[in-house]
Amino acid sequence: MDHPISPLAPARIIDPAPIAGVRLAARACGVRYTDRTDVMLALFDPGTTVAGVLTQSATRSAPVEWCARGLTGGQARALVVNAGNANTFTGLRGASSVDNIATAAAAVAGCAPEEVFVSSTGTIGEFLPDERITLPLMEMAATARPDGWRDAAQAIMTTDTFPKTATAETQLGGVPVRLSGIAKGSGMIAPDMATMLCYVATDAALPAPVLRALLGPAVDASFNSITVDGDTSTSDTLLLFATARADHPPVTGADDPALTPFREALGVLLRDLAHQVVRDGEGASRFVEIRVTGAESDRAARRIGLAIGNSPLVKTAIAGADANWGRIVMAVGKAGERADRDRLAIRIGGLPVCAEGLAVPGYDEAPVAEHMKGQEILVAVDVGVGQGTATVWTCDLTHRYIEINADYRS
Amino acid sequence: MDHPISPLAPARIIDPAPIAGVRLAARACGVRYTDRTDVMLALFDPGTTVAGVLTQSATRSAPVEWCARGLTGGQARALVVNAGNANTFTGLRGASSVDNIATAAAAVAGCAPEEVFVSSTGTIGEFLPDERITLPLMEMAATARPDGWRDAAQAIMTTDTFPKTATAETQLGGVPVRLSGIAKGSGMIAPDMATMLCYVATDAALPAPVLRALLGPAVDASFNSITVDGDTSTSDTLLLFATARADHPPVTGADDPALTPFREALGVLLRDLAHQVVRDGEGASRFVEIRVTGAESDRAARRIGLAIGNSPLVKTAIAGADANWGRIVMAVGKAGERADRDRLAIRIGGLPVCAEGLAVPGYDEAPVAEHMKGQEILVAVDVGVGQGTATVWTCDLTHRYIEINADYRS
Repeated sequence: MDHPISPLAPARIIDPAPIAGVRLAARACGVRYTDRTDVMLALFDPGTTVAGVLTQSATRSAPVEWCARGLTGGQARALVVNAGNANTFTGLRGASSVDNIATAAAAVAGCAPEEVFVSSTGTIGEFLPDERITLPLMEMAATARPDGWRDAAQAIMTTDTFPKTATAETQLGGVPVRLSGIAKGSGMIAPDMATMLCYVATDAALPAPVLRALLGPAVDASFNSITVDGDTSTSDTLLLFATARADHPPVTGADDPALTPFREALGVLLRDLAHQVVRDGEGASRFVEIRVTGAESDRAARRIGLAIGNSPLVKTAIAGADANWGRIVMAVGKAGERADRDRLAIRIGGLPVCAEGLAVPGYDEAPVAEHMKGQEILVAVDVGVGQGTATVWTCDLTHRYIEINADYRS
Repeated sequence: MDHPISPLAPARIIDPAPIAGVRLAARACGVRYTDRTDVMLALFDPGTTVAGVLTQSATRSAPVEWCARGLTGGQARALVVNAGNANTFTGLRGASSVDNIATAAAAVAGCAPEEVFVSSTGTIGEFLPDERITLPLMEMAATARPDGWRDAAQAIMTTDTFPKTATAETQLGGVPVRLSGIAKGSGMIAPDMATMLCYVATDAALPAPVLRALLGPAVDASFNSITVDGDTSTSDTLLLFATARADHPPVTGADDPALTPFREALGVLLRDLAHQVVRDGEGASRFVEIRVTGAESDRAARRIGLAIGNSPLVKTAIAGADANWGRIVMAVGKAGERADRDRLAIRIGGLPVCAEGLAVPGYDEAPVAEHMKGQEILVAVDVGVGQGTATVWTCDLTHRYIEINADYRS
């Protein structure tokens, strides 16, 4: 199937800045595809720490289970990711494939297998031809380069229509530190599902517990606040590596005030990558920001935002450029969180649509309809019961989504 | 927009049998439509009891709030339902419209307003022109007839493509009793959402607490086990009326063994109506039965079944006649209930697809693909952790769904 570049793709794919202590390589290993790179290797200097967030799926893949164990150690020396085969639902043989990859990469990196992280994305239920990944690893290591980020982003794409990259510079105790990252999603390749993978590295020196503390809120406000179709992959993996090569004063803990700029930069970078995933959402023609205020808590606000963002009726209305606020009212109602119907207020594109539980007096749909025709849609909902707020991002649900997901094999 | 009859519609729309103590009328009142009936009135003999189930939405409509109060009384003498306007998100004026309708119907029926039940389905956020409903009520009452069920079913349709009717005969203590019912859903009329309404009457003599006890499990196994798009209407209403005109021995309580045949007949009738709603699901081209076994509890099994039935990726695969069991594995994983990945087994059309967490040895997709091309798809999933079972029904997600919901006003 042909995958034209998403109309919502960024104008320019940026080349992430090198991170001291990280070298990357990409290679065409023929795991499934024959005409493109499909495996990436990242090597990290000794002393690199790691934290991560993994899918909550009850049917998570063998590589995800491997990463869960590795994260308890908090040390990383290598990362191997392949596209084309998810190594999911492959039983003991799947677990042994991960073992093989980690053992081979450990030999290459000169580390323990537990310091190797592995991800796979692609077909479900097929055995991974792991020797296609392990045999070339030594050669890949020999060619790994600090500026290999964009090639790595390209190698982990499945039906993504563009590679997702981001980079940032900030400071820690007055010393410049950098972050670079890549992501993939929400492409689809039959007979698979969308998978979100994201890898970020920094040259900051941050113990694993500090990384973990920083990552949680940043992921909540980025990858945990986006939705394309509400389906959760068996392979979702986000890893944050810190190489400790920047020479800043030691961080005392997650609440060290010196971390503030870093925390902000990490938040912006993850949000950028998460937005790119939404902008490559299957069939997406509009990028939608949903701001929820007045909820009982921030968590309640996020659930309401996701109920709106996951509603097929809201998403099809947006696809049709239809300022159908009744469907937003419905989605608020079904979210399972408190909302005051008679204080509910909705603005679309900044324009008041309803307030106090009623259409605004003299409501003029024309300017709202004009906003709905754009590529960037803004929906603001106040549910009138408290101080909780959240912002959620999604895309519309179009014919193209059905084509990608229903028509491929028919 | 043109709404051709669903390809999944029953071959014949049945005429529900008259129920002693119930008379019905339908009329073109011009609430919104100009060329069809859009209001139904049902009159019940004195002594009629009622139980019901209403939407859990936090933004439920004024008529739903009215019904919630009436159900505490448990007595019913009239039911008024209009299509074309949902009287939702209409504030105090919406509540006063319901008052007006109930007061007018009470005068016609010679009862208290609290014994009148009211539903509205259609546009959200527009004031209901209630005088178009109240003024003709007296004339409607004069023409109400015991055989008016099918006309009533027709009058409450929005973009349903066929009226939904069912009827059953059973016995209570050896005396014949009847049930007849109608439903609407999941049609859509811009700028609205799908709404499910269902009204059933029986001539059995059952106190309201007994009706309630019978209704809960029957609704769980029917209307609470179907999904078209996972969106919950602000107006969903199901009411069960009992006129006490059948001359059977008194029922002692909900656990009276004499109730067994009635309980079964009610379950079958509600499931029939619920299936008709799915068969009229927007854009539906295939009817899907999902049987879940091996869950921690029946409730867990139902949640897993609904996660599968609501997954856009599963539903688009079915639309494409794609035996994509990886997406079923994914949906099981995201359901939030316990499942043993390594004991998971899936059958499609009765054919084993995967077992013990792996594709079955020598899996041949051809016969499974053949089953997927039919109009009736059967998916069976055993999640390998317990004895919980549930069956859930849904339809596929097709281009036609997008057309109906996105293209209408564009």
